[in-house]
Amino acid sequence: MKKIAIAGLGTVGGGVARLLTDNRKVLMNNTGEEITLGAVLVRSIKTDSEYAHLMTTDFSDIENDPSISIVVEAIGGVDAPFEIACRALKAGKAFITANKALVAEKGDILHALAKENNVPFLFEAACGGGMPIIRPIRTCLTSTDINYVYGILNATSNFILSEMDKGSTYDEAVKEAQVRGYAEADPSADVDGIDSVRKLSIILSMITGKKASPDDIRTVGITKLKDTCGGRVKLLARACINDGKVCAEVSPVLLPEGDVLTCVPSDRNGIVVRGAGSMETAYFGVGAGAIPTASAILADVVEAVKRPEYSGECAWTGEKLVISPWQDDSLPEYRS
Amino acid sequence: MKKIAIAGLGTVGGGVARLLTDNRKVLMNNTGEEITLGAVLVRSIKTDSEYAHLMTTDFSDIENDPSISIVVEAIGGVDAPFEIACRALKAGKAFITANKALVAEKGDILHALAKENNVPFLFEAACGGGMPIIRPIRTCLTSTDINYVYGILNATSNFILSEMDKGSTYDEAVKEAQVRGYAEADPSADVDGIDSVRKLSIILSMITGKKASPDDIRTVGITKLKDTCGGRVKLLARACINDGKVCAEVSPVLLPEGDVLTCVPSDRNGIVVRGAGSMETAYFGVGAGAIPTASAILADVVEAVKRPEYSGECAWTGEKLVISPWQDDSLPEYRS
Repeated sequence: MKKIAIAGLGTVGGGVARLLTDNRKVLMNNTGEEITLGAVLVRSIKTDSEYAHLMTTDFSDIENDPSISIVVEAIGGVDAPFEIACRALKAGKAFITANKALVAEKGDILHALAKENNVPFLFEAACGGGMPIIRPIRTCLTSTDINYVYGILNATSNFILSEMDKGSTYDEAVKEAQVRGYAEADPSADVDGIDSVRKLSIILSMITGKKASPDDIRTVGITKLKDTCGGRVKLLARACINDGKVCAEVSPVLLPEGDVLTCVPSDRNGIVVRGAGSMETAYFGVGAGAIPTASAILADVVEAVKRPEYSGECAWTGEKLVISPWQDDSLPEYRS
Repeated sequence: MKKIAIAGLGTVGGGVARLLTDNRKVLMNNTGEEITLGAVLVRSIKTDSEYAHLMTTDFSDIENDPSISIVVEAIGGVDAPFEIACRALKAGKAFITANKALVAEKGDILHALAKENNVPFLFEAACGGGMPIIRPIRTCLTSTDINYVYGILNATSNFILSEMDKGSTYDEAVKEAQVRGYAEADPSADVDGIDSVRKLSIILSMITGKKASPDDIRTVGITKLKDTCGGRVKLLARACINDGKVCAEVSPVLLPEGDVLTCVPSDRNGIVVRGAGSMETAYFGVGAGAIPTASAILADVVEAVKRPEYSGECAWTGEKLVISPWQDDSLPEYRS
C-alpha cells in the first residue's frame, strides 16, 4: 500500500481525491499497489467533509508520517507551496504538483532538493493540465535536439478566442468563460498570457537545463484582439533554440492555414515540438478542469510509486537562460 | 559506455547507425553514457561500407558478446526477427524493434521472455514511426481506463489520400508515393490497411493485456475510394472498449468537420486516445522515413540504457482478445 497526502482540497485537490477512489482499479493494475489517501492539508477542518477524518491544518503531521510517501500540492501561489515542497522533499517524500508559478520560479531549487534526497519531483499537469508534454519531453524526445516549440498552452484564452470566432465580442466571451468556470473573476493570468508564459518557461528550462524566467519573455495577451480570422488566431507560446541561442515569445499569432493547431478546440491545449532531422511531434489534451488535471497528477503518482527515486530527466539549474526576443520570420505576432 | 548491435542495415537500420553518430551528444546528455555501435548483422559483408569492420553474418557473434547490451532489429518479416529477439533476450540483452508484424504476432512471447530475463523489450517505433503512442500509453495514460482510440496509423495511405485530395487519381497517387519512396513496388500492406491493423492490434494488446489478432479486425483499405471529401476521408484504425467488450475496425472514414485528425498532413500519423472522465489526448508525428523511425528507436535505446530492467508496462499474454465488429455509431465506414 502507498499513502499519499494532498495539500489543498479545492478544484484540483478534490479531483485528485476523487480519482484516487474512482480509478482505484486501474491505479492498482498499473502499480501493483493500493494507493490510498493518507492525509489532507487544509486551512480549516470541515467536519462534514467525507475527508474530515484525514484533514489536518499542520503540515508536520504529514511531514513526520513515515507511512506517507508522496505529497501532492494543490494550494496555488508560490510561498506556501514552496515551503511544503521543501519540507516534503527533505522528509524523503516524492513531491508532485500542477503549480506552474511554483515550478517556473523555484523548479531549479526543487530539482536540487529532490536530487539530494533521491525522491521524485514531478509536475506533468503544470504545463497544460491534461495535455501531455512534460513526460514526452523527458522520455519520448530524448534522442534528438529540440529546436522549435509552439503551442496553445492556456485553455481559458483559447475558449475566449473560440467564442469570438463564433461571433461573441471579447467581453461577452470573457463573461461566458467566467459563467462556465473557465475563468476567474480576475482573468488576467489567462488573457494577459501570464499562465502561458510560465508554462513556456518551464518547457524551456527543461529543454535547455538552464532557468528560463517568464519576465524575460515578451508576453502579449488577447485583450486587444478584434478579429480571430476564422479560428486561425491563437495565443501562441513559442520558442526556438539554435546553437544555444534561445528566442521566445507569447502573443497572438495568425496560424498558417491547415496548421495542426487550428484544430485545437476551445477547451484544449496543443503543442508542436520540432527537432533536428525533421523530427516533429505534437501533443493535445484537455487543458483545464479538475479531472484532466487530476488525471495528469495521478499519472505522476503512478510514476512515483513505480520509480520512487529521483529521475534527473530534464532538470535545470539556477543558471539564468538568456532569452532573446522572437526574431523568427515564422509565426509573427498578429495585431488585428 | 554502452554498445548496441543492429540487425539489418537497410533504411531503418542505416538510420539508427547514422543517428548514433549524429546525435551522440544528446544521447550522452540524456543517459550519461557514450552509446556506440558494437556490431551489425547483415546477410553479406559489404567491404566498402563504413561499418564493414563491425559487420557479421552470424548472430552468435552478437549473442555471445558480453559487451553488447542492446539489440535493435531492423530486418523485417517475422521468422528471422523472432529468432533474433528470443536469442537476444535469453542472452540478457535488451531487444528493441520497429517491426509491427513481429510485435503483433509474437509480442506476448517476447514480453514473457523479456520478463523472465529481466531485460527491456521496447517497440515505440512499431506503431507509427515517429508518432509517439507506445510510451504515452505506458507512462502518460496510466491513471485512467482507456475506452476509445482512433487514428491515422499509416503514412503511405495518408499520403495517397492527400494526393487524391489535390486532384490526383488513386493510380497517380500510388505512383507518386512509389517515386518518393513512400510505397513499395507492392503497396498492398499500406493501401489494404494491413499495416494499420497490425499497429491497432498492438495498441489493443497493450491496453487490454490480451493478445489482439489483426485477423480478428475487419480491415478495408483505400483502393476503392473515389472521393476524399476535401481531406476529411482518412484510413482510420479505431477501437472502443466498454466493460471489457472490444470493437475494432480499420476502414476509410469521413471525419467530422474540425476533427483534429483532419489536420494530419500527408506524411504524418496521428491518434486520439480517450478515457473515462472526459480524458482525451492526441499524438501526432512523422509516420515514416528513416530518421523519424530511427529517432523513436533511439528513444527506446535511451530508456534501455537508463532502465536496463524489464518494465512490465502494458504487457500482454497469449490469451486471445475477443474483438467484435465495429458497432459504434461514431466514425462509420465511408464508401464513396
